[in-house]
Amino acid sequence: MVAQINYTKGFLTPIREGQSTGTYTLDRLPLQRGGLLGPVTLAYETWGTLNALGTNAILVTHALTGDAHAHDSEHPDDAKIAWWNPLIGPGRPIDTDRYFVICSNVLGGCSGSTGPASVDPRTEHPYGMRFPIITIHDMVRAQHTLVEHLEVRQLAAVYGGSIGGQQALAWAVLYPEMVQRVAVIAASGSLTAQGIAFNEVARQAIMADPQWNCGDYAPGRGPATGLSIARMLAMITYQSEESMEQRFGRHAARREEVVSPTAHPDLGGRFDVENYLYHQGESLVQRFDANSYLYLSRAMDLFDISEGFSSLDAALARIRSKALFIGINSDFLFPARHVRTLAERVRQLGGNATYIELASPHGHDAFLKEWAQMTVALQQL
Amino acid sequence: MVAQINYTKGFLTPIREGQSTGTYTLDRLPLQRGGLLGPVTLAYETWGTLNALGTNAILVTHALTGDAHAHDSEHPDDAKIAWWNPLIGPGRPIDTDRYFVICSNVLGGCSGSTGPASVDPRTEHPYGMRFPIITIHDMVRAQHTLVEHLEVRQLAAVYGGSIGGQQALAWAVLYPEMVQRVAVIAASGSLTAQGIAFNEVARQAIMADPQWNCGDYAPGRGPATGLSIARMLAMITYQSEESMEQRFGRHAARREEVVSPTAHPDLGGRFDVENYLYHQGESLVQRFDANSYLYLSRAMDLFDISEGFSSLDAALARIRSKALFIGINSDFLFPARHVRTLAERVRQLGGNATYIELASPHGHDAFLKEWAQMTVALQQL
Repeated sequence: MVAQINYTKGFLTPIREGQSTGTYTLDRLPLQRGGLLGPVTLAYETWGTLNALGTNAILVTHALTGDAHAHDSEHPDDAKIAWWNPLIGPGRPIDTDRYFVICSNVLGGCSGSTGPASVDPRTEHPYGMRFPIITIHDMVRAQHTLVEHLEVRQLAAVYGGSIGGQQALAWAVLYPEMVQRVAVIAASGSLTAQGIAFNEVARQAIMADPQWNCGDYAPGRGPATGLSIARMLAMITYQSEESMEQRFGRHAARREEVVSPTAHPDLGGRFDVENYLYHQGESLVQRFDANSYLYLSRAMDLFDISEGFSSLDAALARIRSKALFIGINSDFLFPARHVRTLAERVRQLGGNATYIELASPHGHDAFLKEWAQMTVALQQL
Repeated sequence: MVAQINYTKGFLTPIREGQSTGTYTLDRLPLQRGGLLGPVTLAYETWGTLNALGTNAILVTHALTGDAHAHDSEHPDDAKIAWWNPLIGPGRPIDTDRYFVICSNVLGGCSGSTGPASVDPRTEHPYGMRFPIITIHDMVRAQHTLVEHLEVRQLAAVYGGSIGGQQALAWAVLYPEMVQRVAVIAASGSLTAQGIAFNEVARQAIMADPQWNCGDYAPGRGPATGLSIARMLAMITYQSEESMEQRFGRHAARREEVVSPTAHPDLGGRFDVENYLYHQGESLVQRFDANSYLYLSRAMDLFDISEGFSSLDAALARIRSKALFIGINSDFLFPARHVRTLAERVRQLGGNATYIELASPHGHDAFLKEWAQMTVALQQL
């Protein structure tokens, strides 16, 4: 399906035994919506050792603003240092003693992989908005070339949540013979109208910032205000009414006050939830590229697992993997009932699909917080 | 409680029998958060005739971007012409044959009442952000002076939804002897952390627009982009995941394409839901003032019915009205369980409170759409 790809030798830097970081570059990637992109570099990390047959690899796919650093073997317990830390490691659900675990920064990202902030070789300037529209399928096809480059013949599993869950699902549909098990977490076959709407408000906020300048800005001088506002909104959709009520309620700001995205004075005081959101906005600006945010959130919107197939059933019937679908009862970005319906459909089509629902007040983000429930759930696969 | 108010004669313009529009100006209004505002003008409309005792009046309070035109006796069936049209009129739940119905544009609004766009007599320039912080209590106290000016001695009922529901609740608590019946619809004693968070994202989007200019802009030259984005977000929170899915799903834009707030090209096509939100944003910009949006949404956040009393119970125990609380099962801005809990609390405190839940996919906006259910519900009062 991915034709005419010439492999360029990647760089693999061993950090310590069983953990390495690397980059891999392919000359060009044909894109689902047309055109070729190249060269395409993917930054990745691995943990554990690939067996001689190349059959014990696990691919982990990250969420919207995540990166390849899913696990940190030096600080294996702190989820702030590596986003899925508690689930990965020796004896953990994603067991690095038994498996060769791979996580790559997504195509279109800004943590080492090719994205809108990368230099376009044709112009020697950053792509900016000249970056092509990319889709979940493109991300998965790029990961597929990486996995083959790493001499993986069979993926023992693909695990991902949110936009990473969309990728996991696409893996199972696009490469059914290669994926033995798949966990699709807090994701479904396509985003809801409400989800698209939230994403578009966030994008408009970014593009409304004069510093965005149609996507042409120097590194570190991007639309900080717009990206902060986008992040504030996104953070609401990753939580739930209940968890925000528990955590913030109507308390006045209790921590050190940070500057709001617009830096305008508070109107009659500041609520704790506002201060928290300002902080989240500011943090994202330090580590994320606004154009990447536009492209990746759009890929999330555009994803429809049926695209390119005659029907949704035709797409889902391709799945050969043992599949685990995990919904979250308080998730309103990817409502649990859509995840459950997807699992049921796969099973009705003859697939081996299980559905587990996390009971959590944490909303969409529960797959990054509910370590005990996630551990139990992943062990079902 | 409202001391030293000097009444200025208002203007009352009869339109046709039983319907009139007017303005009423009071010299100054002491504000809950301190200071005096004045003069304060309220634009209002009335339908029906006040009886000689002044005891058959009904006050209707409007939602965030609403106005005094709750009913149009010339076009009594079109909710686009007047926002509560189908509920008001001869023989309807708010029966203009029996009652003298009043609706005034809220303090801080921009449809005839004093708000940030009004001229500050001290400077002879619009208030802009020099307008003081106003609260729901201030709005209600201003309405109280209007109602007294109209020679109403007893309100047979106060009805309101959303921020109008907050006002209705405040009426019952602040003026218990004056309000015989009250309907608090899609509103509770205070907004959730999530609700505050959504409002603050919207406000940041407005203030991030360079055209906002710290609130100083000429009429018609305000922050159109920021206000549009704010409205896009608000429109999501007024609906539900289910209703948006039913209405828009993942369809491509099906109506005439409107310009997005930022006017930047679409990223890989346009979804119908996006086009709809752009249209909603554009429409609000035509009729609403951005600074009013900031102040009114902030009043919604700041509202806590317990404020000024020793406890929530102390506030609610003041209610003497027969009270109807209406929640909406799909409302996520004012979740039904909070409305129900409030009703239960009033009843536990000895009040005469009934709770009715609308079963509707329309989310918060159901009180502006579910006419049959609303008719039945209001008849319970």
